Amino acid sequence: MLLKNRLRHWLLAAATLAAAPAMANNPVAPSDSATIKQIYDNALTSTKSYEDLRYLTKNIGARLSGSPQAAAAVEWGRQVMNKMGLDRVYVQEVMVPHWVRGDKEIGRVLSGQVGSTDVNIAALGSSVGTGESGLTAEVVEVHNFEELEKLGKKKVKGKIVFFNRAFDNTHVQTMAAYSGAVDQRGGGPVAAAKLGAVAVIVRSMANEIQDVPHTGNTRYQDGVDKIPAAAISTKGAELLSKQLKNDPNLKFYMRMTCENLPEVLSYNVIGELKGTEKPNEIIVVGGHLDSWDLGEGAHDDGTGVVQSMEVLRLFKDLGIKPKRTIRAVLYMNEENGLRGGRKYAEEAKAKGENHIAAIESDAGGFTPRGFGMEATPAQIQKALTWKPLLTPYGLHEIGAGHGGADIGPLKGQGTVALIGFKPDSQRYFDYHHTDIDTFETVNRREMQLGAASMASLVYLISQYGL
Amino acid sequence: MLLKNRLRHWLLAAATLAAAPAMANNPVAPSDSATIKQIYDNALTSTKSYEDLRYLTKNIGARLSGSPQAAAAVEWGRQVMNKMGLDRVYVQEVMVPHWVRGDKEIGRVLSGQVGSTDVNIAALGSSVGTGESGLTAEVVEVHNFEELEKLGKKKVKGKIVFFNRAFDNTHVQTMAAYSGAVDQRGGGPVAAAKLGAVAVIVRSMANEIQDVPHTGNTRYQDGVDKIPAAAISTKGAELLSKQLKNDPNLKFYMRMTCENLPEVLSYNVIGELKGTEKPNEIIVVGGHLDSWDLGEGAHDDGTGVVQSMEVLRLFKDLGIKPKRTIRAVLYMNEENGLRGGRKYAEEAKAKGENHIAAIESDAGGFTPRGFGMEATPAQIQKALTWKPLLTPYGLHEIGAGHGGADIGPLKGQGTVALIGFKPDSQRYFDYHHTDIDTFETVNRREMQLGAASMASLVYLISQYGL
Repeated sequence: MLLKNRLRHWLLAAATLAAAPAMANNPVAPSDSATIKQIYDNALTSTKSYEDLRYLTKNIGARLSGSPQAAAAVEWGRQVMNKMGLDRVYVQEVMVPHWVRGDKEIGRVLSGQVGSTDVNIAALGSSVGTGESGLTAEVVEVHNFEELEKLGKKKVKGKIVFFNRAFDNTHVQTMAAYSGAVDQRGGGPVAAAKLGAVAVIVRSMANEIQDVPHTGNTRYQDGVDKIPAAAISTKGAELLSKQLKNDPNLKFYMRMTCENLPEVLSYNVIGELKGTEKPNEIIVVGGHLDSWDLGEGAHDDGTGVVQSMEVLRLFKDLGIKPKRTIRAVLYMNEENGLRGGRKYAEEAKAKGENHIAAIESDAGGFTPRGFGMEATPAQIQKALTWKPLLTPYGLHEIGAGHGGADIGPLKGQGTVALIGFKPDSQRYFDYHHTDIDTFETVNRREMQLGAASMASLVYLISQYGL
Repeated sequence: MLLKNRLRHWLLAAATLAAAPAMANNPVAPSDSATIKQIYDNALTSTKSYEDLRYLTKNIGARLSGSPQAAAAVEWGRQVMNKMGLDRVYVQEVMVPHWVRGDKEIGRVLSGQVGSTDVNIAALGSSVGTGESGLTAEVVEVHNFEELEKLGKKKVKGKIVFFNRAFDNTHVQTMAAYSGAVDQRGGGPVAAAKLGAVAVIVRSMANEIQDVPHTGNTRYQDGVDKIPAAAISTKGAELLSKQLKNDPNLKFYMRMTCENLPEVLSYNVIGELKGTEKPNEIIVVGGHLDSWDLGEGAHDDGTGVVQSMEVLRLFKDLGIKPKRTIRAVLYMNEENGLRGGRKYAEEAKAKGENHIAAIESDAGGFTPRGFGMEATPAQIQKALTWKPLLTPYGLHEIGAGHGGADIGPLKGQGTVALIGFKPDSQRYFDYHHTDIDTFETVNRREMQLGAASMASLVYLISQYGL
């Protein structure tokens, strides 16, 4: 059954493709293949974007919204694009949350049987602190919200709820494993607080058993107590779970001095190449400037930022005059607010701008596999007719899929197609939101191939619309 | 023109595929999709192959042919497969070269202008040494054999020839860049010696500018002086080339105590699952046990070895009874002699064995992209009919391509299809033949996906032949 459906689906796609070159509304010029080759050749031999990434990660570093480093990243992005000789570089004001981590967190399992064991934890973004002296409580382990509900107030009140549902490693796409686990991180504190818990510990969002905790944003709800929430490394989660089995009454000590400060003025940074024939049809290509405060924000999302700027550089340096307008948008505050993405969409709407496509790179600087599209069937079919131009570069996976967080708010404005750049996903959650998301984990060529892939799709859309 | 050809090629493939399900000679069962899913699920959640790789790389380590570690790897491979409960585990005797590196090499640029600068070099495999005291000579830089010929005896005699042709980074497949440069490493010493050179330095086979030299085998020729040959790191090559421009009379000092020792008895290690319906039709899946003496031989080819054994484990643990016989072959001496590959083919021929397919994994433990086939058009078409079963797992690139070195000698024996497992190639030459080809550079999931990909193709061939 599964096979039959897959076959049918695939054959439909193949038949559509076979028919495509005859479609009158979508001519491709023989020179398109040559232009795309030029784009890849240039991207793979220029060191520009890689050196840009080095600067952003090594000289600026982690850049959480509201931090001085986020401000530095804004000014850096503006300067880099200013030097490119674009038609326009500008910023968009946006107020952003300002959360600070405070001291390095302490997490400690206190067992009557095996004594005290330190484990690596990191406060979740937006979390309140524990107070200077920390808190100590018994722990109840759950794997989902149903289990938690079943425990009820009696068994949860006064305790720390430990959400320990692991990634399902059978998912070939690691994003699917993430989607299947991340509800614990976002919804854990509210659900636990409703039952009287004093804090939450969430198993890190990772495929591997590692010693490094993965932070990420969590949510509170008006009218529900705000309780401290931390990610625990997967190794720590395994240890805690094991000790709990032998000693259900063990206690956990956690200390976090994180806090939410007043909002701060920040900016999206935008660079533009004006279209020669249809300047009012706008194509966005973007990533987010902010990162978590751990590591260097290399794959998340330094690579998306430098790839987006690289698209414009490639057009400039190769002398390609786009028929439609292309904008690189460096969004602020994807990680803990999405204020930049919302602001960009609001202004676009207010100005009556016509966005025809928005491409986001926020899944790491890994080898390209394709593009996922939130678009009409006709738009997807049109993109599929370009497949023969793109598969020589490893872009096989083109079809319906997830666009991206920052471009999401554009949805519904006219006929804009939201397109997520889709790199290989296997290594992403080894680094995501951690201390070890550093420049060294980015392979130069993989990142450059991503930039070239985005530039090639932008080129085709700029030539033929979508 | 390029585009037209690509389109035509692609449409042909699409049309063939569209026709495929109707082909009477290639039914696929609905359960095949479920079996392949089981294979991937098991491979991605078992730690067996990853822990095997850890043992091979960390507890045995580098294992050049003739070394005690190579002998350890043979015994380890035998024991691992013995524990699997296969139908048969056996070894094949094979005499192998025994080359040893000796002391860590010294490479030093001696410039009258900037003084002495040490650079990282590594003797090429099979190279003779320089003698205990080393050698010092002027350097001539060339980029290909034509340049060398033009220089002639007069300008080459008594000098060190420095082959400095870099990888062409515009190749999307790094294997193509390697193919375009590796003639310098293999053929450099003979060509230079014919013109009276005293030694050869070859730019390392790498995409990046790195400080680590990449070794690899070189060749001598009867009747031509055997002169010492070393790889220089790409960083060292850039430095040497730059200094040569300012100071063409600079000298280079090199010291290498490598030597060729008498041949040693070694072994291929083979594990077999007997086919239930056509036991005389044999499918080989293999990698090579030996590695260079630098690093840990993780991607080259520890991953190929554990993936090949993992194919058998998956069949055993999932209770899949193959209709045709499957053999995992752990070849000895791929790196500097190919004696194991030749021996296996010789014995197969002598015994009149009927090999229908041989799959080799020797391109690193990276995310799978597909399979390259040295096979008849009909065999390739048959494999293409399985594409709908394989593309959900990222295996898009199935078609004519390179089989592999170790399976190469089987060519022409009956109708055997030689199939190269094709992982993503971007990072391979960051590690290839170096100190830094270590366990840590292997991503567990990428390696496991490779094993599952190989097992899935082996499964389909075992069911339907080729």
